[in-house]
Amino acid sequence: MISARNQLPGTVKSITLGAVMAEVVMDVGGTEVVAAITRTSVENLGIQVDDKVQAVIKATEVMIQK
Amino acid sequence: MISARNQLPGTVKSITLGAVMAEVVMDVGGTEVVAAITRTSVENLGIQVDDKVQAVIKATEVMIQK
Amino acid sequence: MISARNQLPGTVKSITLGAVMAEVVMDVGGTEVVAAITRTSVENLGIQVDDKVQAVIKATEVMIQK
Amino acid sequence: MISARNQLPGTVKSITLGAVMAEVVMDVGGTEVVAAITRTSVENLGIQVDDKVQAVIKATEVMIQK
Amino acid sequence: MISARNQLPGTVKSITLGAVMAEVVMDVGGTEVVAAITRTSVENLGIQVDDKVQAVIKATEVMIQK
Amino acid sequence: MISARNQLPGTVKSITLGAVMAEVVMDVGGTEVVAAITRTSVENLGIQVDDKVQAVIKATEVMIQK
Repeated sequence: MISARNQLPGTVKSITLGAVMAEVVMDVGGTEVVAAITRTSVENLGIQVDDKVQAVIKATEVMIQK
Repeated sequence: MISARNQLPGTVKSITLGAVMAEVVMDVGGTEVVAAITRTSVENLGIQVDDKVQAVIKATEVMIQK
Repeated sequence: MISARNQLPGTVKSITLGAVMAEVVMDVGGTEVVAAITRTSVENLGIQVDDKVQAVIKATEVMIQK
Repeated sequence: MISARNQLPGTVKSITLGAVMAEVVMDVGGTEVVAAITRTSVENLGIQVDDKVQAVIKATEVMIQK
Repeated sequence: MISARNQLPGTVKSITLGAVMAEVVMDVGGTEVVAAITRTSVENLGIQVDDKVQAVIKATEVMIQK
Repeated sequence: MISARNQLPGTVKSITLGAVMAEVVMDVGGTEVVAAITRTSVENLGIQVDDKVQAVIKATEVMIQK
């Protein structure tokens, strides 16, 4: 169990690989959520389109717009 | 318009105020999303329970769990 | 209005595009400020050299050196 | 020398101490910059009002608003 | 399995609770590692002194000093 | 002196350069620590394999897994 307060269930929609970083676009309840993680993490986890995953975000990284 | 790729519409459910930081819990499509922002930001934006807001998160802050 | 406490007005000096990430160098009152954002954000906002922009930073991301 | 690309010279204007976190407001070339750091860091560095300091920010933490 | 590249095994040495945030000091192979997480996370995970835990850090949050 | 609470001594094991970002893998007391920093920072600091460095991490970026 990890302390990160936000764990949003979603489905991988697309993956773009760079030399170092990768962009993973997920569908979370109809809203697009985008993660920029290392390419090695995509490979380590074997992330593929249509995978069921969770977007995990530490509370201190969340801002509010009103 | 801000470069942050993630802007999730939600409703404020609860606010806990500390001396410096505040915790704001939102409902985003049935999932709880938590933001730890400064108390002054809560006051500057006048954030209150039941407010319609957006949780804003930079893509580099999103991890994936699988 | 966003909760991020730091919003520094500046001018875009250079943009370097990678496959996933982009580096945007700004001039903020004579000091260089650098942002690493996704390439897609640069494209979505149509960021170009000489644009007047704001560098936006959450207070929890700022350290102090003394 | 640290890899953080952003090192903005400023002056401490106010310090608010909580039990765990502290908010330090700086003046950086006429613009307010706010850092939320641990209270222990404020004590370890002996940060006081009127100190000449640098606000240090990793490039991946900077967003752009246009 | 989470995409965060850094997962450092350690032991909890002390916990300081604020109203919103908590500071958890760990011993990681003889080096002190400090986490500032929400008080609620400390309570949700039941973190106590002497617990065997992992300090988890996304690669994009790590700087290098040389 | 910087406010970041975590400064872990290590040795650079490998460097992968992208157009914008770079991945630097370090050995910290037998555990692998990975930093994703800008390519320009690698060049500015002249980071090379076998360099003695410190991995620097702000406390608000550290999560706990139990």
